[in-house]
Amino acid sequence: MKGAEALIKTLVDSGVEVCFMNPGTSEMHFVAALDRVPGMRGVLALFEGVATGAADGYARMTGKPASTLLHLGPGLANGLANLHNARRGATPVVNIVGEHATYHKQYDAPLESDIEAIAGNVSGWIMCPRTPEQVGPDASAAVAASYGPPGQVATLVLPADVTWLEAGGPAPPAPHAAPTEVPIERVEDVAKVMAAGETSALLVGGSASRRDALLAAGRVAAASGAKLLAETFPSRLERGAGLPAVERLAYLAEFILAQLDGIRNLVVVDTRTPVAFFAYPDKPSLLVPEGCTVHLLAAPGEDATGALQALADVLGAPDEVATQPPSRPDRPTGEITAEAVANAIGALLPEGAIVSDEANTAGLWIPAATAGAPPHDWLCLTGGSIGQGMPVATGAAVACPDRPVVSLEADGSAMYTLQSLWTQAREGLDVTTVVFNNGSYAVLNLELARVGAEPPGPQAEAMLDISHPDLDFVSLAQGMGVEASRPETMDEFCDRFAAAVAGDGPNLIEVVLPAGF
Amino acid sequence: MKGAEALIKTLVDSGVEVCFMNPGTSEMHFVAALDRVPGMRGVLALFEGVATGAADGYARMTGKPASTLLHLGPGLANGLANLHNARRGATPVVNIVGEHATYHKQYDAPLESDIEAIAGNVSGWIMCPRTPEQVGPDASAAVAASYGPPGQVATLVLPADVTWLEAGGPAPPAPHAAPTEVPIERVEDVAKVMAAGETSALLVGGSASRRDALLAAGRVAAASGAKLLAETFPSRLERGAGLPAVERLAYLAEFILAQLDGIRNLVVVDTRTPVAFFAYPDKPSLLVPEGCTVHLLAAPGEDATGALQALADVLGAPDEVATQPPSRPDRPTGEITAEAVANAIGALLPEGAIVSDEANTAGLWIPAATAGAPPHDWLCLTGGSIGQGMPVATGAAVACPDRPVVSLEADGSAMYTLQSLWTQAREGLDVTTVVFNNGSYAVLNLELARVGAEPPGPQAEAMLDISHPDLDFVSLAQGMGVEASRPETMDEFCDRFAAAVAGDGPNLIEVVLPAGF
Repeated sequence: MKGAEALIKTLVDSGVEVCFMNPGTSEMHFVAALDRVPGMRGVLALFEGVATGAADGYARMTGKPASTLLHLGPGLANGLANLHNARRGATPVVNIVGEHATYHKQYDAPLESDIEAIAGNVSGWIMCPRTPEQVGPDASAAVAASYGPPGQVATLVLPADVTWLEAGGPAPPAPHAAPTEVPIERVEDVAKVMAAGETSALLVGGSASRRDALLAAGRVAAASGAKLLAETFPSRLERGAGLPAVERLAYLAEFILAQLDGIRNLVVVDTRTPVAFFAYPDKPSLLVPEGCTVHLLAAPGEDATGALQALADVLGAPDEVATQPPSRPDRPTGEITAEAVANAIGALLPEGAIVSDEANTAGLWIPAATAGAPPHDWLCLTGGSIGQGMPVATGAAVACPDRPVVSLEADGSAMYTLQSLWTQAREGLDVTTVVFNNGSYAVLNLELARVGAEPPGPQAEAMLDISHPDLDFVSLAQGMGVEASRPETMDEFCDRFAAAVAGDGPNLIEVVLPAGF
Repeated sequence: MKGAEALIKTLVDSGVEVCFMNPGTSEMHFVAALDRVPGMRGVLALFEGVATGAADGYARMTGKPASTLLHLGPGLANGLANLHNARRGATPVVNIVGEHATYHKQYDAPLESDIEAIAGNVSGWIMCPRTPEQVGPDASAAVAASYGPPGQVATLVLPADVTWLEAGGPAPPAPHAAPTEVPIERVEDVAKVMAAGETSALLVGGSASRRDALLAAGRVAAASGAKLLAETFPSRLERGAGLPAVERLAYLAEFILAQLDGIRNLVVVDTRTPVAFFAYPDKPSLLVPEGCTVHLLAAPGEDATGALQALADVLGAPDEVATQPPSRPDRPTGEITAEAVANAIGALLPEGAIVSDEANTAGLWIPAATAGAPPHDWLCLTGGSIGQGMPVATGAAVACPDRPVVSLEADGSAMYTLQSLWTQAREGLDVTTVVFNNGSYAVLNLELARVGAEPPGPQAEAMLDISHPDLDFVSLAQGMGVEASRPETMDEFCDRFAAAVAGDGPNLIEVVLPAGF
């Protein structure tokens, strides 16, 4: 058994069944081994950012890592932004980066680079097996490391000769660690604070934005009167009718401060204390209002769900909690607007849908419009690096072939990793993409003012305008084999959207909005 | 004057007149300053890999750096592969990466990353001004550093607060160093070797692949009988009728060994000793034949042109050298094949054309078919990381608005940075793109066999096949505002190509080839 076969067999035995890839020469033995070791599905991407983002989306939905296969340092670089996002979302990824043969590195061939330096920032774990015998054990350790908890990117740098030499056999899967239990004393301390009568808020994120944790959080809120908040960009928020209603923190610092206004105790659960995405002149970076104290219930890697359940019990919370009642907007008619599209999605979102949300400014109304839709999952831009939404939708669809995936995309973000559409077509994935084409980096128009830059002149305005020339997403999608349309009325949009989410395979709907919104 | 203004003013005063960018919130003060400081043209890209590759193409044609403007670590990551290529081609680039405000970094906001670690591998110089007063001096130093010689990527990490605070004024431009003169003793030693009667070859690259150096190299070849070779992927090779004919080293190791067969003395001029792109089982990495000695005439950063001229003089070479006679293939007719397209390009390439060559396997016949065309420039894939060709063509067209640019693209490579087309349309750049659509990563089919992997099974074959679904480059180009067509015969191709290179603005011609070639 060669190194490449030992690697794949170890991965498969460890539960890693999909590899999102864009390989090159140094990875050819891995590719050839796909046919010799059963159980690993190779999914090809035309760009590495699609592969890494898809691995992220897959793991968010399955709870277990996919692997990637990237070509040397430059291939890793192309996938790095979405690995950044995966890191921020604590997603487990087994990130495999091909490397020159061990003896070839000394020649400084054209594609030579310092892979470990590039991978360092996004990886919680890095290893480079130097012998074929080491491939299996390192692969096993990579899978275990990727789980954390919290989940992380585990990067395996894979020299070509190690894949083509005899390796003996695979390694047994390494066990992965369970989350650490939160000490009951900490739970009791938090309970005391919340029971003391001051206004509290519970801020959940990470593993605490899933169903069981949210139900426990709802009990805590019921017992304590605490406001129930979620971090701005949860990796996966389970929501909709029958689940506790959770208000997500806004993107803009001013709005977050308004949401936290009057809160005296902020209890954070598997997330961080709110900070501004960016610094602005004369505005705070840390978004905790004066007089508010932050209390940690569960840190990332701790058992947040268990801690919330214990907290509810200590507070003597009822078993039953108030949940979001079913409620949908009416199916809109008339002219296309961003708000009407939000209502249409709220009216038509199917039960069990997976929504990958990178609609940015144009998506402002969508969370409210879908709050009472049947239960569904909401996947966010965890690390703030745009170009994540379409790859994540792709990976989520591979993970959950029986569930409809809805990919909400801003035009500017869509153009980062649009190659996702091709993989969706190739794999026949049930993804309905709605592109909001407002012809601009609208968020930057907003930010230009917020950072205190003087009124923009023509050059600055041009740098935020992407309508010269207009992007035609129907043509772009068709060029990659995806059926696409551009409805002219809300009726048409509703018909197209309903058909797309009901049908199989990928579909793209372009929504043309007035410039800047 | 704010930091952003001091920065731009210093750059402009130092001769940096174009900024290829994809900015975000942290770069808004730079963007706003574009209208307050005259002389800097902002060119927007929809993806950072386009911006960095365009900066590379611009500098190859002007000999002076452009700047980039990238958004934090993830924006840098998206542009990193083409910065790798720029590094390998010794292209000067002033690479500006926005960073969180100095006081904001401690909060570990979602987009936080270690920018210097990511930039390290591609940058010969990195600086991060911590105060607004330091922005001007650091910008000036960045420009000087970018020139080298040899040219390099100089990365300026730019905290947001440094751009919005008062900075005093700009800094004076720093002088940049001239190449080091090659000691005459070394020239004489090389002359002795070449005059001794054994077979020699002169291998030129970098600055030695430009006109004056090539004319001197032609004199050396005439006097010594040496074979005249160029590195596989020169940054910019001046060639065509009236210039000495130079044979480029092949991409495949076996072919390079055949090209060097029987050579006893290999004289390298501003390039490296040939090594294989990749390691292959039981094949050498170092491609110098047994019995051949390598002699360095000029290292990167040394005055290669002067050294070649001195060498020619020491050898008593004639002033006049044999040059490539004008010669073009006949305009082909009949069915479309890769070879016929090569001949068509050879028949129709206009004088002064700039060719960005990323045609890969499908482009095999093009160098020979264009060898006797009127003088033109040939820009190659310097670092081997695909996705460089279209951005480089974009930057070259910005640099040389009066010259036609021809962008030769393989389908797989085109899909890496296809967003280049939008910038070409937006800026009205005269770029004619020919996409060779063979529906596969054809080079990898070749490499799969060469690395000794067993005959591929269906999964492996699928990972190299990009024809499911077929990419429709006409549709993709039109989606970004670029006129496009798919000729069905060579007559049609010739008509379209001739019109496109004669016309203004961008145009794309899709050439559909049989699968795999």
